[in-house]
Amino acid sequence: MTSVTPDSLTTGLRQVLDGRWADTRDSVRTLIAEHHLVPRTGVPLAQYRADMLDEMRAMVPLGFPAQGFADDDGRSNPGAAVTAIETLGYGDLSLMVKAGVQWGLFGGAIENLGTARHHDQFRQGLIDLDIVGCFAMTETGHGSDVQRLETTATYDAQAGEFVIDSPTASSRKDYIGGAAEHARWATVFAQLITAGPGEEPVSHGVHSLVVPIRDAAGDDLPGVTTSDCGYKGGLPGVDNGRLRFDQVRVPRTALLNRYAEVAADGTYSSPIESDSRRFFTMLGTLVRGRVTVGAAGGAAGRLALTLAVKYALTRRQFDGPGDDGELLLLDYRTHQRRLLPLVAKAYAFAIAQNDVTGELHDLQSDRNTEPDPDRMRRLETTAAAIKVGHTTLASAAAIEARTACGGAGYMAENRLPLIRDDLDVFTTFEGDNLVLTQLVAKHLLTAYAAEANDLDTAGWVRFVAGMARDVTLEKSGVRQAIQTILDSSTETIDDSDLSEPATALRLFHEREDHLVRTAAARLRRAQDDDGDAYEVFTQTQDHLIKAGQAHVERLALEAFVAAVAELPDSPVRDTLELVRNLFVYATLEDDLSWFLMHRFISVERAKAIRRGVNELCGRLRPVASSLVDAFGIPDVALDVPMLTGVSD
Amino acid sequence: MTSVTPDSLTTGLRQVLDGRWADTRDSVRTLIAEHHLVPRTGVPLAQYRADMLDEMRAMVPLGFPAQGFADDDGRSNPGAAVTAIETLGYGDLSLMVKAGVQWGLFGGAIENLGTARHHDQFRQGLIDLDIVGCFAMTETGHGSDVQRLETTATYDAQAGEFVIDSPTASSRKDYIGGAAEHARWATVFAQLITAGPGEEPVSHGVHSLVVPIRDAAGDDLPGVTTSDCGYKGGLPGVDNGRLRFDQVRVPRTALLNRYAEVAADGTYSSPIESDSRRFFTMLGTLVRGRVTVGAAGGAAGRLALTLAVKYALTRRQFDGPGDDGELLLLDYRTHQRRLLPLVAKAYAFAIAQNDVTGELHDLQSDRNTEPDPDRMRRLETTAAAIKVGHTTLASAAAIEARTACGGAGYMAENRLPLIRDDLDVFTTFEGDNLVLTQLVAKHLLTAYAAEANDLDTAGWVRFVAGMARDVTLEKSGVRQAIQTILDSSTETIDDSDLSEPATALRLFHEREDHLVRTAAARLRRAQDDDGDAYEVFTQTQDHLIKAGQAHVERLALEAFVAAVAELPDSPVRDTLELVRNLFVYATLEDDLSWFLMHRFISVERAKAIRRGVNELCGRLRPVASSLVDAFGIPDVALDVPMLTGVSD
Repeated sequence: MTSVTPDSLTTGLRQVLDGRWADTRDSVRTLIAEHHLVPRTGVPLAQYRADMLDEMRAMVPLGFPAQGFADDDGRSNPGAAVTAIETLGYGDLSLMVKAGVQWGLFGGAIENLGTARHHDQFRQGLIDLDIVGCFAMTETGHGSDVQRLETTATYDAQAGEFVIDSPTASSRKDYIGGAAEHARWATVFAQLITAGPGEEPVSHGVHSLVVPIRDAAGDDLPGVTTSDCGYKGGLPGVDNGRLRFDQVRVPRTALLNRYAEVAADGTYSSPIESDSRRFFTMLGTLVRGRVTVGAAGGAAGRLALTLAVKYALTRRQFDGPGDDGELLLLDYRTHQRRLLPLVAKAYAFAIAQNDVTGELHDLQSDRNTEPDPDRMRRLETTAAAIKVGHTTLASAAAIEARTACGGAGYMAENRLPLIRDDLDVFTTFEGDNLVLTQLVAKHLLTAYAAEANDLDTAGWVRFVAGMARDVTLEKSGVRQAIQTILDSSTETIDDSDLSEPATALRLFHEREDHLVRTAAARLRRAQDDDGDAYEVFTQTQDHLIKAGQAHVERLALEAFVAAVAELPDSPVRDTLELVRNLFVYATLEDDLSWFLMHRFISVERAKAIRRGVNELCGRLRPVASSLVDAFGIPDVALDVPMLTGVSD
Repeated sequence: MTSVTPDSLTTGLRQVLDGRWADTRDSVRTLIAEHHLVPRTGVPLAQYRADMLDEMRAMVPLGFPAQGFADDDGRSNPGAAVTAIETLGYGDLSLMVKAGVQWGLFGGAIENLGTARHHDQFRQGLIDLDIVGCFAMTETGHGSDVQRLETTATYDAQAGEFVIDSPTASSRKDYIGGAAEHARWATVFAQLITAGPGEEPVSHGVHSLVVPIRDAAGDDLPGVTTSDCGYKGGLPGVDNGRLRFDQVRVPRTALLNRYAEVAADGTYSSPIESDSRRFFTMLGTLVRGRVTVGAAGGAAGRLALTLAVKYALTRRQFDGPGDDGELLLLDYRTHQRRLLPLVAKAYAFAIAQNDVTGELHDLQSDRNTEPDPDRMRRLETTAAAIKVGHTTLASAAAIEARTACGGAGYMAENRLPLIRDDLDVFTTFEGDNLVLTQLVAKHLLTAYAAEANDLDTAGWVRFVAGMARDVTLEKSGVRQAIQTILDSSTETIDDSDLSEPATALRLFHEREDHLVRTAAARLRRAQDDDGDAYEVFTQTQDHLIKAGQAHVERLALEAFVAAVAELPDSPVRDTLELVRNLFVYATLEDDLSWFLMHRFISVERAKAIRRGVNELCGRLRPVASSLVDAFGIPDVALDVPMLTGVSD
């Protein structure tokens, strides 16, 4: 590696990470600094929530909120909107979530599921916060399996109104951000029941309606009962609450009717015939929420890692074996191993996340064009996969960062426990990570079944995966740059150099292929054996999850490899190659037993991988500071006593 | 397995877990229920802290606090004292820590480092809480490396006083439980400096002195500056604070002088010549703190697992593939895999922890007899090892339990985030787990070097391990019951049944032996090559850590195997054998790559281990409820909305 000043290295790395919406990132960084947006403790809930609403008002004139919505020409800038919310992950996740609920979820439902009448009525007001809303999907009884929601919206043709009802404890809307205090409106997801003239009432599955829940004074409207979830494991500035509906009437036009309409006489119509497919199409248009949560969680994970790496570069403990006095924590191999592989993974997922945001932008920025349905479905799978990988990583990073800072890491003034607490639920909301992994695996299986033209397997997939009743067939899709690298490699894996991207790509690909093929084979065998359905499902479930996880890691690797391949030869590229290699080695090490058991790597190579992690940690140690500086965390977020040495 | 009513199974399992101090456990369970001792949220710090002090007062008449101290005959009941504090882990860890600080750490220092004059002055008062104290060891600059503490206690022979001084930011006592508000006294650890007549002042290393820090009104005494750590990552009922000393004078008798005395003229004397050995001997007598923290952390981990298992037995989501409607979460293999291996590990460590408490009791209950120094040193290593294993497990269990309960798990009303937050620091305090693991590894190496009569290695160990400057030689010590089982087995490992304890024992033993032997060989080779000291240390560190971890798991396995071996044939024993096997299989699975890489197990056996975890999860699923009921968690601790279905 040629010599390079840390500053140019940091700048170069940051350019790669900041990506297409670098300006947006910088604006939000400035906002964080000027408004001192950092997680706080000991603030009463009501105060924290009110402060967050005030901070949202400060964001409106900056224009980010509006960028999420179509203008008069039907154009919007979803990439900027997502990136703005993502960057709040360097500040205070309470604000990120509250802003995400208002503009991303509530606003996103109206924008994507509504039509002109809703856009005219709500768009400007919700951007400006004259209309504050919440996204009322999850119920106490059902969170992951949202097709089974119990709240009903029954059409009364005589009155021309829908009647919203949630009579049971389990049908209560629960954990809803904004529902405890600030929301005046809710997009309520409910089983839609209607009857055309002379027909029996029939349920058409889950639809969304926009429902007023509080009056201008903030009191519950008749038939609506709100309550407060109170303290949570984190996110104290978000007013999560519960909603009960007792025969609440809303006009027919409250139905967000882009994908389904109920005529005045009760006749139901939709361009999509299958209830299930229609519902998943609707959910698909809301993919932005999942993208944003993955991105913002990842940003907060980078913040936690930066705090821990910087502490490890100031804190000394125990004399070294030489004569250099007390060693810095980051000079210990064990400490490098705690933090640097997580930093490398943070790079991989930040880059992969940027790709997802970019694809979302390209598909959704022009509302005059329907996005390509295949690309849209691929985006949904990729967004789910990267949400899983990024939030799992971020949560693990926050936990490790806290622990790696010892007693100092446990002090709220150093913020690590607050970040960890806020981040914790990112693995749960916008899709529980385990359920999403299974969804990803199901998509892989159906793609495989389609390619193999294997109807038996497809049937089993439908039957066994069972988590989402809609089965879509799709190709998994390998980007061209990756295909070129793969095609250029002719060596056998066992002889080739793991630092070569082609070798890594082939290992990650072949693991995933093997897992998908063998899962399909198990399902088919079970079918042939006429096995007990529950038994088959149970025996195969961890196999499916593993296939999904392998896919997540493959996507991250491909994004990282492609990003490095685009760079000209430079010290920045040299450093990124080391980071990429550490990502590869550390990820392989995490799953070494699988690779050994399936004879994808030899015992000798496995030992070399362990040594390789150590060696790469040692080589990246001198640039550790640049690696985290490149995240571009605002100084105010790092202004904590354990780094500045100032406390009471 | 013969049929058995859940009640008798639960009772039988509980008997095994409750062990020697079952009555004490029951008394504390009653206390938890009667005083509703559960973690709370939203209570102002000052209020929470005051409440905890009140609850400590309620414990005094129950007699547990006194059991930790010698009576007129010189006898105490440390096993009961530890078990009482441990059981508070089923209640509120804030109370557990505050009680542990007062009676375990502050009281323990006076009891074990002091002599009759201190016992007469403080013992009764600190038991009764007329004297409230704190344990002032950790400083801002040094926590793990306590030999490097900077606070000084300089003897002034003219005045017959010690002068306590902490002039720098790094010499400030930090994170000290009780120092923020309630403590009036502190056992202060400081470098002791004194000069005999006509001598130059000399430092004798770290010693402890009992120092008044506040007056009766709670105001800082002259020269003492206390401050408050404020909010932490958890434990809101513990008033952690900081202490600065500016030339604070205490009488000569303030020195806790069991292991060292300073005569009126300044002459220093000690029965232990080496400063380092003396300091580690002093620390060794304080082993009870480490035992208690491991035990109580483990209890809180069991509480978290119980909440999650019980939720998984009530919560349904998604239809199963059969016709049974929505499945319980615990009917999913993935969910079983999340929780049941942790339950099995919780059994192993609970049993191992009981053994440690028992050994502590046997060694420390009679103050008229000096404990056997070899057994004492072995206890120190074992206590460190089990503290590491038990708190690492508990913390991981609390995180997994929260996640496994989804949105409900994130609500403070369901307590899982509070338990996780309180538990988080257990991996840090009373010895950072990574540092302790290294300490354990060092002891293994020195034992090996002694056995091999290999002075070169011993020299290297001294040089490289470096974490504690004192090297003690000891046998690792295998208990007789385990030796008998090992001797009875003649099969080769590869052919033998993993469900046979002898096979598991041999695998765990041989892994540890291999790691220790190869670590020693690496060190010796490096010495021969005249390698760079820092390089050698760095290259070997993760190897050493792995050896320490292997030892931790071997100890847990041996305890579990011995406990099962003692039981008569019964359904209880049958169930415990399954739990033990799941512990074995899951622990092997965690480290499968190592066993494969070192050819300790074949690929076929590795695959069988994966299948075995699944199969054992399936077999234990029907008794999951009994497994957690046997922990004997008081009902009040499980009275949460997600289990009762009642919330606002």
